[in-house]
Amino acid sequence: MVKVGIVGGTGYTGVELLRLLALHPHARITAVTSRKEAGMRVDAMYPSLRGYVDVAFSTPETAALHDCDVVFFATPNGIAMGEAVALLAAGVRVIDLAADFRISDVAEWEKWYGMTHASPALVSEAVYGLPEVNREAIRHARLVANPGCYPTAVQLGFLPLIQSGAIELDGLIADCKSGVSGAGRKAELGALLAEAGDSFKAYGVAGHRHLPEIRQGLARVAGQEVGLTFVPHLTPMIRGIHATLYARLSRDIDLQEMFESRYASERFVDVLPAGTHPETRSVRGSNQCRIAVHRPQGGETVVVLSVIDNLVKGAAGQAVQNMNLMCGFAENTGLDVVPLMP
Amino acid sequence: MVKVGIVGGTGYTGVELLRLLALHPHARITAVTSRKEAGMRVDAMYPSLRGYVDVAFSTPETAALHDCDVVFFATPNGIAMGEAVALLAAGVRVIDLAADFRISDVAEWEKWYGMTHASPALVSEAVYGLPEVNREAIRHARLVANPGCYPTAVQLGFLPLIQSGAIELDGLIADCKSGVSGAGRKAELGALLAEAGDSFKAYGVAGHRHLPEIRQGLARVAGQEVGLTFVPHLTPMIRGIHATLYARLSRDIDLQEMFESRYASERFVDVLPAGTHPETRSVRGSNQCRIAVHRPQGGETVVVLSVIDNLVKGAAGQAVQNMNLMCGFAENTGLDVVPLMP
Amino acid sequence: MVKVGIVGGTGYTGVELLRLLALHPHARITAVTSRKEAGMRVDAMYPSLRGYVDVAFSTPETAALHDCDVVFFATPNGIAMGEAVALLAAGVRVIDLAADFRISDVAEWEKWYGMTHASPALVSEAVYGLPEVNREAIRHARLVANPGCYPTAVQLGFLPLIQSGAIELDGLIADCKSGVSGAGRKAELGALLAEAGDSFKAYGVAGHRHLPEIRQGLARVAGQEVGLTFVPHLTPMIRGIHATLYARLSRDIDLQEMFESRYASERFVDVLPAGTHPETRSVRGSNQCRIAVHRPQGGETVVVLSVIDNLVKGAAGQAVQNMNLMCGFAENTGLDVVPLMP
Amino acid sequence: MVKVGIVGGTGYTGVELLRLLALHPHARITAVTSRKEAGMRVDAMYPSLRGYVDVAFSTPETAALHDCDVVFFATPNGIAMGEAVALLAAGVRVIDLAADFRISDVAEWEKWYGMTHASPALVSEAVYGLPEVNREAIRHARLVANPGCYPTAVQLGFLPLIQSGAIELDGLIADCKSGVSGAGRKAELGALLAEAGDSFKAYGVAGHRHLPEIRQGLARVAGQEVGLTFVPHLTPMIRGIHATLYARLSRDIDLQEMFESRYASERFVDVLPAGTHPETRSVRGSNQCRIAVHRPQGGETVVVLSVIDNLVKGAAGQAVQNMNLMCGFAENTGLDVVPLMP
Repeated sequence: MVKVGIVGGTGYTGVELLRLLALHPHARITAVTSRKEAGMRVDAMYPSLRGYVDVAFSTPETAALHDCDVVFFATPNGIAMGEAVALLAAGVRVIDLAADFRISDVAEWEKWYGMTHASPALVSEAVYGLPEVNREAIRHARLVANPGCYPTAVQLGFLPLIQSGAIELDGLIADCKSGVSGAGRKAELGALLAEAGDSFKAYGVAGHRHLPEIRQGLARVAGQEVGLTFVPHLTPMIRGIHATLYARLSRDIDLQEMFESRYASERFVDVLPAGTHPETRSVRGSNQCRIAVHRPQGGETVVVLSVIDNLVKGAAGQAVQNMNLMCGFAENTGLDVVPLMP
Repeated sequence: MVKVGIVGGTGYTGVELLRLLALHPHARITAVTSRKEAGMRVDAMYPSLRGYVDVAFSTPETAALHDCDVVFFATPNGIAMGEAVALLAAGVRVIDLAADFRISDVAEWEKWYGMTHASPALVSEAVYGLPEVNREAIRHARLVANPGCYPTAVQLGFLPLIQSGAIELDGLIADCKSGVSGAGRKAELGALLAEAGDSFKAYGVAGHRHLPEIRQGLARVAGQEVGLTFVPHLTPMIRGIHATLYARLSRDIDLQEMFESRYASERFVDVLPAGTHPETRSVRGSNQCRIAVHRPQGGETVVVLSVIDNLVKGAAGQAVQNMNLMCGFAENTGLDVVPLMP
Repeated sequence: MVKVGIVGGTGYTGVELLRLLALHPHARITAVTSRKEAGMRVDAMYPSLRGYVDVAFSTPETAALHDCDVVFFATPNGIAMGEAVALLAAGVRVIDLAADFRISDVAEWEKWYGMTHASPALVSEAVYGLPEVNREAIRHARLVANPGCYPTAVQLGFLPLIQSGAIELDGLIADCKSGVSGAGRKAELGALLAEAGDSFKAYGVAGHRHLPEIRQGLARVAGQEVGLTFVPHLTPMIRGIHATLYARLSRDIDLQEMFESRYASERFVDVLPAGTHPETRSVRGSNQCRIAVHRPQGGETVVVLSVIDNLVKGAAGQAVQNMNLMCGFAENTGLDVVPLMP
Repeated sequence: MVKVGIVGGTGYTGVELLRLLALHPHARITAVTSRKEAGMRVDAMYPSLRGYVDVAFSTPETAALHDCDVVFFATPNGIAMGEAVALLAAGVRVIDLAADFRISDVAEWEKWYGMTHASPALVSEAVYGLPEVNREAIRHARLVANPGCYPTAVQLGFLPLIQSGAIELDGLIADCKSGVSGAGRKAELGALLAEAGDSFKAYGVAGHRHLPEIRQGLARVAGQEVGLTFVPHLTPMIRGIHATLYARLSRDIDLQEMFESRYASERFVDVLPAGTHPETRSVRGSNQCRIAVHRPQGGETVVVLSVIDNLVKGAAGQAVQNMNLMCGFAENTGLDVVPLMP
C-alpha cells in the first residue's frame, strides 16, 4: 500500500485522481492540499466522493507530503517546479500533471509559459510520462512529467505513421476538439454554459502551449524535426478530446495492419476496425485511447481519428498508469473502468 | 460465480447491466439475447464495452437461458410476463427491469399498460425490488419486479415522511425531471438532440404509467391510500432524475434527523447535510440516491430533493443490488462505482 | 424616433436589448454605457451585433443619458436606485431591469437584497411593468420596474386562477426551472458548462429573492396574502423558464375557457390547446409566454405549465414592450420575432 | 407580393423557411405540402409559428402549386427532380433545397446519390445558388439548386484563396463540424440526445455526398481540378457549422486584405478582424457567414475558419436570398435577423 499525496486537489484533475485512487487497491490517499480550502472536507466540495474519500483539504505545510511515497501535482503550471526538489530529496516520487517538466528545451518552455523555470536541472531528469513510448524509463523515474491532453491524443495517433516512415514529416495537421473541462475548474466567462454551450469555435490558432510539446514528442520518434499545424477547438461537451490528424503518405502501406501491430500489446490503446469512427463517449471516464485510421478515396492523405477522455488518459488516468509503473503494480491497477455510455 | 443471462441487451438498461456486471466479481455473463442483432458482437454495438464483454448477441432460442442462475429482462413491457414462467420452472431466478410485475392489481396494470397480463398468477408472487423497503423478501424471491426510475426517486424521498406520520397524505406533489435516456434507446423524434436539446417541457401530465406504481408503494407504507399529483418533465441531459417533492406537515418534527435515522444503515441512500441541494451529476454512473430535506421559511410545506441516476439506481444498478441480495452476496458487490463528476 | 440609452450594456439583458432595439423602427440607440469596457466597440464584445449596432461603450459621464428619451438600466441590483432620480428630473423615462423598484415594501426589499434603498420615495412612484396587469399605469409611468424572470412566468400562470376565485390561496406551489443565462454573464464556477452541463439541481430552496416579488404580485390580484412555496431549479440549457404551478381547486370551473378568455386580447400570452405541454424552445428568442392548464385525473389539483424566454419576456423583451406602451407605439413594435426552433 | 409554396414543410429546412417567410414583406405563403400531415395545422406541429403562420399542411394535389410564383422544395433528395418540370412549364420559379440539381455531372450525381436522375436535362439549366459566386445568373434563373450546408461554409472560406492563385490546389483539407440539425428531422438512433449529446465524432470519412459538390465548386473557381480531403464531424449542438480549412501557400500575400477586399460588398459574408475566432453562435438564426483567416507562426499553412448557421445560410436563408434575387427584391429582404446570442 503506497501513501499518496495530492497537491492542489480542488481542480478537475484533482477530483479525477481522487475518483480513481479511491478504489485503487494498493494506494491510500493521505493528504490532499489546498491552501484556499484547507479544513474543508473534500467531499463537501465534491459530493460525488461521499463515502469514498474521507479526508479534508490541508495546507501544504501540515500535509506531511514528505512522508508520502508518491505525490501528484494537480496544480497550475509553475508550482511543481518549485516544490518538487525538496520532495525528491526526501525520497518521494513525483508526478506532475502540469507542464513544468514536459519540455526539455528550457528556453522554449520559458517562451511558451511566460515564466522563468525554477528547476532547470530537474527538467533533464524528468521522464515524459507517455507509457506507450517511455515505459521502461518511467518504471525507474523519480520524476514524471505527465503529458498534456491534446499531446496524448495527437502523439498516439501519429506515432505508428511516423515510426513506419511512410508519411511526409512536413505539413502534418492536427485538428483537435476538446470538451470544456480541459480548461480546468476556473471561473472564466468563456467557459460558462451560456457562452460555450450550443456553440463551437477554434481558439489559439496563432499558437497553443501544447504545440511545442507535440512537436517535441513527434520529433523524438521521427529522429528529426516535423512540420505541424495544430488547431484546437472548443466543443460543447464536458469531457473528451477528438483529434483528427492529417498526413501525406510517401509510400503505399497497409495502414490498418500498421496500427494494429504497433498497439497489439498496449492495454490502453484500442485500434478500431477499419472503416469505423470512434466517439469520445466510448472512452468517457476511462483511460482508453481509441483510434481509427482512414485513407479517403484511396488517396495520398491519411486521416487518423483518435479519442481520449481528457481528464483520464489525458490527465489523471495516465498519471495513475505512471504511478503503477513506478511502483511495480500491474499497469491497469485501479484503471479497469468501463466507459459510461450513454 | 453465478451464470447470468440478459434478455434484450440492446437498450440502455441492457448496456448498463453489462457495464456493471462486466466487473462484478461473482457474476459471469453467459448470454445476451437480441432477436434482431443475433450474431453481432455486443461490443460492436457498444464500443465502450470493448475489452470487457466478449460475447455476441444470441437468439433467445440458442441462449440456453435455462442454464443461467439469474436472468435479467431488459426488454419492453410485456415480454417478461410471457417468458418468466418457463425460466422459473427451470429454477432460474428472474429480475424484470420492465413493468410487468410491478403492480399488484392486475386490472389496474392492464388499464395503464394497455394489454392483457399473460401471467397474473406470477404477479402476486413477484417481490417489488426496492431493497430499502423489501430487503428480506427480495433475499428469498424467485421473481423480482425491479422498480421504475421515477418510482425509485419518489418513494425514497417520501418514505421517511410517510412512515413518521408527520404529513398529510392528501395533496402530495411529485414534480420530477428526467434526462432523456429514460425514454430508452428508441428512434423517436421527440428524443432527438435537435428536439430535446436546449429545451425543457413537461409531459404526460394527464397520467403517466409510473403514477399507479408510486401510489401503490406509498400506500403500502402509509397503510392507506394517498393523494398524489405526479408531473414528469424532460430535461436536456442524458442521465439523471431529480424529484422535487412537496407535502404538508401535520405536526412539528426534526426533518433532518428523521431522514438521517431512517437511512442510517442504507448503503445506497445518502442524506445530505441540512440546507444543501443535490445535483444529479453527483450520482452519475452510480447506484446512489442522494436526498436533501427542506422546510422553506419554516412553513408547513416540506420540500424533499431526491436524485438518482435513472439507469443505475433507477434500473440496472438496483437490479444488480437485487441480484446480490437474492444470491447472498454483499449488497454493494460490483456497485462500488464513484460517480463521474464533472 | 426616440433616443434610447442603455446603462450596463455588457450583460445578457443588455445584449438582448440591443438585439431587439437594433431593429426597432422607432428607437435609436444613442448610448451604451460600461465603465469597464468604455471605448470598446459593442460588436467587438458581441460579434452577433456586427452590422447592426454601430456604437462603442461609453462611460456614464460621457454618455449624455440626460438627452435620451428612455434609459434602460441593465445593471446589477442597487445601481438604478441611485441614478434614476437625476434622469427623471431631466425628463427621461426610466425602465429598470433590475430589482430596485419591484418591491413596494422598502423594508422587505432591504431584507431580501441586503442593502439600504437609496430612493425609497421613488419606489412608490414606480409602476410594476407587467403589462398584462398594469397596462394603463405603464402608459403614464415615468419609472417602470421591469419584473423578474421567474415572477413573470409564475404570475401569468397563476393570474386567471386567482382572479377567478376558484382556488385555495394557501398552499400554492411554483416549481420553476431556468436556463443558466438567468444567472447573468458572470464568471462563476456554478455556471460553467463543466459544472452546470448535463446535470440538474434545485437552489435557493430556503428563500429566493423572487419569492417576495411573486407573493406581492399575487396578493395584489387576490386582494389578500397568498401562501406560496417557490423552488427554483437550474436546468442545463441556455435560455428559457418553465414554471410548473400547483393549486387546489375550491370549486368546479372550466379551466381552459377561463385561461382563454382572460388572455384573449393579450398579444404576448398564448393559451395552448387543452392537453398540450409547452416547450421552452417554442418561445426561444421571442416575447411570448405560452401556457397550458391541466387537471390531472380530474382531481382537485390544477397544474399550470407556463414558459417564457427568460431574457425576452423575462427581461429585455418585456422592457421593450413597456417602452412601447410608455411611448405610445403599438405594443408589439420591434417584438415580432418568430421563435427559433429547432 | 409573390405567392410562395413550400413542398415538404415538415422538416427543419421547411420550418426555417416558414420562420423567415412569415415576416418577409413581399412574400405570402399560400401552400405548405406534406402528404403525411395533410390537414394538420402547421403551427400544431411547430408551436413556435403560432400567430405567424395560418395555414394547414395540404397534399401536393390540392396545393395549387402551379399558381405560385415561387416554389421551394424542402424535400428529401430525389423529389424535386421529378416534380420541377411541370412547375417550370407552368411558369413557376423553383428553388430546390435538396441536392437534385447541384452536380452538373449527372453520372457523378447518380453515383453519390444512388438513384437515376429523373430530369438530366434540367441539371444543365439549373443555376447553383451561391449568390457570392453566381449572383447574376441567379437573377435570371428559373431553377436554382440551393447549395448544401457544408459546401456553403467551405466554398466561401476557400474562395478568396483560390481566386488569388496563392495556394497549392492539391492537398486542401476541410475539417468540418456540424450541429445535429444538419441530419434533418428524422427519427434516427444516432441523432438522439442520449447518443449524440456530450460526445463528438467524425463520420463519413470514406466519402460524403457533399464532397463532389465542394470539389465542383472549387474547381469552377480554380479553372482546374482541386485535391480535397473533406472530413465531417457531428458536434453536440443543434445549429451551426464550423469549417476549419487548411491550404499550403505558394507565395506570400496579405491574407487579411485579400479576404476583406473579396467580400467587401457582400452583405452576408463578414470577414472578422485578424487574430479572431468566429463562434457558430455568432450567426445563430441569421444568414451570415463569418470568416477569419490565420497563418500560424507565419508558416506556409493558411488556416481559414468559416461559420454559418446550417439551417439559414446553409439552407433556408440562402434560399430566401436566392428568391430575393430572382424576384428583384433587395437581397437582404426578410433576412435582417440579429443572431441569437447567448
